[in-house]
Amino acid sequence: MSVIYLDNNATTKVAPEVRDAILPLLGEEYGNPSSMHNLGGRSGKLLTEAREKVAAGLGCSPDEIVFTSCGTEGDNTAIHSALESQPDKRHIITTKVEHPAVLNVARHLERNGYDVTFLGVDKLGRLNLDELRAAIRPDTALISVMYANNESGVVFPIREIGEIGREHGIPVHTDAVQAVGKIPINLAELPVDYLVLSGHKIHAPKGVGVLYVRRNSLFRPFMLGGHQESGRRGGTENLPGIVGIGKAMELAVAGIEEENTRVLAMRDRLEKGLMESIPEAVVNGDPENRLPNTLSIAFKYIEGEAMLLLMDQFGICASSGSACTSGSLEPSHVLRAMGLPFTYSHGSLRFSLSVYNTDEEIDKVLKELPPIIERLRQMSPFRRGDEGLDWVEAHSHNH
Amino acid sequence: MSVIYLDNNATTKVAPEVRDAILPLLGEEYGNPSSMHNLGGRSGKLLTEAREKVAAGLGCSPDEIVFTSCGTEGDNTAIHSALESQPDKRHIITTKVEHPAVLNVARHLERNGYDVTFLGVDKLGRLNLDELRAAIRPDTALISVMYANNESGVVFPIREIGEIGREHGIPVHTDAVQAVGKIPINLAELPVDYLVLSGHKIHAPKGVGVLYVRRNSLFRPFMLGGHQESGRRGGTENLPGIVGIGKAMELAVAGIEEENTRVLAMRDRLEKGLMESIPEAVVNGDPENRLPNTLSIAFKYIEGEAMLLLMDQFGICASSGSACTSGSLEPSHVLRAMGLPFTYSHGSLRFSLSVYNTDEEIDKVLKELPPIIERLRQMSPFRRGDEGLDWVEAHSHNH
Repeated sequence: MSVIYLDNNATTKVAPEVRDAILPLLGEEYGNPSSMHNLGGRSGKLLTEAREKVAAGLGCSPDEIVFTSCGTEGDNTAIHSALESQPDKRHIITTKVEHPAVLNVARHLERNGYDVTFLGVDKLGRLNLDELRAAIRPDTALISVMYANNESGVVFPIREIGEIGREHGIPVHTDAVQAVGKIPINLAELPVDYLVLSGHKIHAPKGVGVLYVRRNSLFRPFMLGGHQESGRRGGTENLPGIVGIGKAMELAVAGIEEENTRVLAMRDRLEKGLMESIPEAVVNGDPENRLPNTLSIAFKYIEGEAMLLLMDQFGICASSGSACTSGSLEPSHVLRAMGLPFTYSHGSLRFSLSVYNTDEEIDKVLKELPPIIERLRQMSPFRRGDEGLDWVEAHSHNH
Repeated sequence: MSVIYLDNNATTKVAPEVRDAILPLLGEEYGNPSSMHNLGGRSGKLLTEAREKVAAGLGCSPDEIVFTSCGTEGDNTAIHSALESQPDKRHIITTKVEHPAVLNVARHLERNGYDVTFLGVDKLGRLNLDELRAAIRPDTALISVMYANNESGVVFPIREIGEIGREHGIPVHTDAVQAVGKIPINLAELPVDYLVLSGHKIHAPKGVGVLYVRRNSLFRPFMLGGHQESGRRGGTENLPGIVGIGKAMELAVAGIEEENTRVLAMRDRLEKGLMESIPEAVVNGDPENRLPNTLSIAFKYIEGEAMLLLMDQFGICASSGSACTSGSLEPSHVLRAMGLPFTYSHGSLRFSLSVYNTDEEIDKVLKELPPIIERLRQMSPFRRGDEGLDWVEAHSHNH
């Protein structure tokens, strides 16, 4: 059975062109870029070329690119840089809907003497910039706001947030893991200090990421070791991953138009079709400012996990709105922050498309999903009007 | 021209079996282990299998294995774990000959209020355990000593060091990046708390490493984010790298005997041949306790870099004893710690073999290197008895 992969915000298939670029690194091009010999020199050249490609794709200079092992490392490094460089400033501003790579760093800081302002979002998942402005203090060391949300797909006004940071002399970090390759990004015109991306979200392999650090912005290495990355990140460079992310960035830039036309049209057709055929469903996230590939829908009365398992029988891969992969039944912190009722947030599905999807795949989902939801609703205890439902609603904030 | 690769302590060729194990991950096996669907489940299974292979190779339990991006991350994480868990203890003990992944963390800690004891080594590169015992204080938070030195190949008495740590209730960390695959390691019998290895030193690709953390030993995550690695390391798992290091660990264990017979014999023949044909040369490091694959030789009056460039013309890849790749002419901190005179340490070469080397390759080096050294010595200003040489000797400690 062929796989219909609609979970590209979780991870993506490695592009064949990226795989082809990586293969020599798993063969005869195994040199260490730090080595003096010709084999090492060839690796050094591949490293330089990949850096140039990533910089070209982001509209910045190659010396502003630091290769990392993942988006999480980039986020940790950016936050660490801003705080260690300004030890007297003990306040940071972020949002309630960040990825755990930012959220858990912020919570850790809070336990260690920092004040953290977690900005909320409205029902459409939008930030209020007046709240951001009001949160700024003389000791604010960093503003960290993601470029686009992984679950709702909502795109945040990062340019305006960057400008607010500049006005107040506060560094701005943005986790752009979900934005790169889906919407155009040009760092020449974006006033942020740190921007993070991850290879495996843009059809490069897992295990490589990029941290952009604007020239003259505050920087302190997070991982200490050798002189690699101009002393900004110790550890032998992950050449296969780096060459892969260089190629993937080229493809991502070339694919932006298709992402915003063909992929967008598939996403919209999926949304329209599901909303027309399935009652008691709501689309999550600001329809005006959403990633072109992302669709989050909440279906009342049922559980996302059950939907996923039944869809899986048809080879359809998507994601639920909840963080159940960690073994808890806690609903998604993003959907909770948007005020989605418990009965809805548990029944949320996220579809995230890529340029590798086809219209036939969308047809298949539109055919198979409505009966799955009907079947699950017939079994749902919540739908029977149990007292249990009221209890759950009343207590769900304790989760 | 075929490459004669004798720089395996810098990085290694990816084993063909490892590459074959990785290829599906660059193709259809691109799932995220955290995803609920079957594609994610298959990735989760590959992750589990790789963890079991690494644990079997090290003689520990799979739940004691944390996958990282490199040896440097493992070292940073181990040190961070011990210190953050014992905030009142402000002293650590390490050595002058550690890899920068430990040395630069220790120097950073020193600048931030920690006391660090850097143990020296003797002329053969050996530690004195009485010095270690004498350095222990009530506030010692960690003992960090590498398993084997990357430059000299000297193997340290990690079992005894572990026992000293236990006696005093002090956690022990060992950077075993150069030891794994070259000498047998059995964590069931080795009393250390943290052990670090790197994939690209054992014929896995660059970008993946392992941190062993003994069950019940102190641990605090270094990179904060998602729930991956049982909450011990955030960030989507580098599945291609992890599957690669799992396979590489199997091969490393299977290859230990060949490493200590055939590889050892090639190394010894190379050493004997060079020492017989080249005057004014010394072998660096304890002949009784050296990695079987490593040969460090210092040739008086000449520069390692010049030798490397001329050897490169014959396709021979080795490494010099100095850290010139960072653009400085500072000689190796390891050879300086061993008290090697400046004129020798600048003329050091490190040959590091692997099971992929052949007797014919050793013959070729034995044929080509002596005339290279003779040629360089004829050009050497140091040999002419310049006053410059005395000046350099007198001032070299300022480097």
